[in-house]
Amino acid sequence: MTLVNRRIVLASRPKGAASVENFRLESVPVPTPGPGEVLVRHHYLSLDPYMRGRMNDAKSYAPPQPLGEVMIGGTAGQVVASRNPSVAVGDWVVGMGGWQEYARHDRQGAQALRRVDTRRVPLAAYLGPVGMPGVTAWYGLTMILRPKPGDTVIVSAAAGAVGSVVGQLAKRRGCRAIGIAGGRTKCDYVVDELGFDACIDYKAAADAAALDAALADAAPNGIDACFENVGGRGLDAVLARMNAFGRVAVCGMIAGFDGTPVPITNPALILRSRLMLQGFIVFEHEDLWQTAAAELAAQVASGALKYRETVAEGLERAPAAFLGLLRGENLGKQLVRLS
Amino acid sequence: MTLVNRRIVLASRPKGAASVENFRLESVPVPTPGPGEVLVRHHYLSLDPYMRGRMNDAKSYAPPQPLGEVMIGGTAGQVVASRNPSVAVGDWVVGMGGWQEYARHDRQGAQALRRVDTRRVPLAAYLGPVGMPGVTAWYGLTMILRPKPGDTVIVSAAAGAVGSVVGQLAKRRGCRAIGIAGGRTKCDYVVDELGFDACIDYKAAADAAALDAALADAAPNGIDACFENVGGRGLDAVLARMNAFGRVAVCGMIAGFDGTPVPITNPALILRSRLMLQGFIVFEHEDLWQTAAAELAAQVASGALKYRETVAEGLERAPAAFLGLLRGENLGKQLVRLS
Repeated sequence: MTLVNRRIVLASRPKGAASVENFRLESVPVPTPGPGEVLVRHHYLSLDPYMRGRMNDAKSYAPPQPLGEVMIGGTAGQVVASRNPSVAVGDWVVGMGGWQEYARHDRQGAQALRRVDTRRVPLAAYLGPVGMPGVTAWYGLTMILRPKPGDTVIVSAAAGAVGSVVGQLAKRRGCRAIGIAGGRTKCDYVVDELGFDACIDYKAAADAAALDAALADAAPNGIDACFENVGGRGLDAVLARMNAFGRVAVCGMIAGFDGTPVPITNPALILRSRLMLQGFIVFEHEDLWQTAAAELAAQVASGALKYRETVAEGLERAPAAFLGLLRGENLGKQLVRLS
Repeated sequence: MTLVNRRIVLASRPKGAASVENFRLESVPVPTPGPGEVLVRHHYLSLDPYMRGRMNDAKSYAPPQPLGEVMIGGTAGQVVASRNPSVAVGDWVVGMGGWQEYARHDRQGAQALRRVDTRRVPLAAYLGPVGMPGVTAWYGLTMILRPKPGDTVIVSAAAGAVGSVVGQLAKRRGCRAIGIAGGRTKCDYVVDELGFDACIDYKAAADAAALDAALADAAPNGIDACFENVGGRGLDAVLARMNAFGRVAVCGMIAGFDGTPVPITNPALILRSRLMLQGFIVFEHEDLWQTAAAELAAQVASGALKYRETVAEGLERAPAAFLGLLRGENLGKQLVRLS
C-alpha cells in the first residue's frame, strides 16, 4: 500500500488580494526517508500573516515562495520514520514542514526539528504562545520595546496569536496594556479574558478623529511603546499619541501586502517625539528562542498565559482559513488540524 | 547716550510658506544688567532650519516661539558688561541670545553661556562645525548610526552645516560617504572640497525612478546608514536602497514644515529590511557635547574638517537669509554678521 501525501502548492501569485485560486491541492506518494532522513506526520499546520508576503515575487527578507512548490509554514507532528539518530519514531516535533500531511526532512532539516514536551503544554501551543508567535511577542517586547513598569504599551491585532501574548507579557511587567482589534467580540476577549486594560475597536472608529479620541481615552498618559502588527491608519494614530522617546517594534505591515503600500502619514513625529522604530524578524534571533520559550511554556503550563485557537479541520481547508486570517476572522492562533 | 538694541521679533505665524512679513524689526534701548546678569554684544547669529518649526503653533519637542518676542537662536559674541563672577568683560561666548544685537542674560542664563577659545578656532565656527550643527552631526553619526568601516553612509542636505560634517566624520571612520544636495554647485563642493565619495543632485532627478537610479549608482553595495535632514522623496528613495539592519538618524524633516506632512510612502521596508529609525534632538544630549566639540575643534584647528559659511550682513537681513536657508540657497553654515 502506498500512503498518500496531500499537499498544497502555490499555483499563482496574487494580483491584489489573495484568493483560493492561488493555491492547488495535490496528492503524491508519501516519500520514503533515505539515510539521515526522517518522516514526520503533521497534526497541525500553523497559518501566519508573514506567508502573504512570501506569495509575492518581491524583494524581502526571505526569498519568495516558489510557484508549484509546497507552501512554506510551521508544523507540529510526530516522527513516523527515522534514519537519523537524533530523532526517534514517536517523538513530537515542531518544524517548517509546510502545508502538507507528511514531510520528509533531510539530515540538516532533521537537525532543525525542535523536539517538544507535550506533557504540560499541548502540542498545538508550540505553534502559538510557546512557538513562533509567542517568541515573536517576547522578543519585540523584551528586546526592542523594553518597557518599564508604569509604561503604556499598545499592540495592534491584539486578539491574534502574537498580540495576545504581547499584552499579557506587558501586564506581567507592570505596564498598562492596550489592544487594537477589529470588532466587539475580539475587544471583549482581549479585555475580559486576556486582562488588557483597554481595547480599541478600530472598526467602530469612523475616521481618524474618532480613532484618536479612542486612543486618548484608553491612554490618558500617552503611549510609551507600540508593538505594531498591522501598520496603516492605526499606526498613524498611535504615533500621534506617543510620548517622547517612545519605541515602536515593527513586526507586521500586513496593511500593505495587497498592492499599494500604506504610508506613515506624518513621519515628522519621529523627530518631534524622538521616537525609535525598529523592524525585526524573529527567525533572526534564534539565540534567544530557548530563553523566551522557557518563560512562555512555564506560563502556559501554569495557566497564567491565556490563549485561544481557531482551528480549521483538514488540509483542504487551509487556503480558506489562511484568507480568513488575512481578513482578521480568527480569534487567537489560526491552525489547521490534520487527522 | 542710550545705546540702541535692534531686534527681530515674530510678528505672525506663517500660513504655508514663511515670508518676511512674519518678522518685524524693532529698536529698543540696550538693557542694563542687574545683579548676577551679563550683557553680550552679538557678532554672529546662527540661522538654522529648526527655527521654522518653532514658528508654528504646533505640538513639538519645544514650545512654539511666542508672538511679539525676539526670535530664538544661537549667537556668538563678546561680553560687554558683567555682574556675574563666572563671566568677564571681553570673554567670547556662545549662547542662545536670539535675533538681536545685544542680549542680557540673567544669572541662570549667564551660567549657560559657553566660553570659547578663539585663538585656534574662529568665533563663527562655534556656531557651525564646532557648535550645534557639528555636535548634531557627531551625535547622530556616532551614537545612532554607529557605522563600521566599509559601511555606506548617506546624508541629505549634504552641503549644509550639519550634513557637511556628517560625511567628513564618516570618511574618517572608514566609510563610503554619499551626499544628497540640490544643484551642481553644491554637489561639486560636497565631492571636490569636502571629500565625499559621491553626491546626488536631487534637483537633476526628474522622478522617483531617476533618483533610485542615481542612488544605485552612488551606492552599488546598498546603504547601511542614513543621516536624514530633510525627509520626503529623498528618504523614500534611500529606504528602498537600504541594506538589512540599516539605521536612519532622523535629524530633520523640513519637507513637511510648510503645511501638509510628507509621508514615508512604504513603511513596510522598515520590516523587510529590519531597519531602525531614530529621531533625536541634540539639545537633549548635553552630556556628550564636550566630547564631540573637542574632536570637532581639533579637526577644524588642523584644517582636517572643512567648512564654509554663507554670511548675511546686518540684522535687518536675517529674515531674508533665513528664508533663503529654507529654500536651500546657502552653502554651508548660514550666519548673520552684526558689526
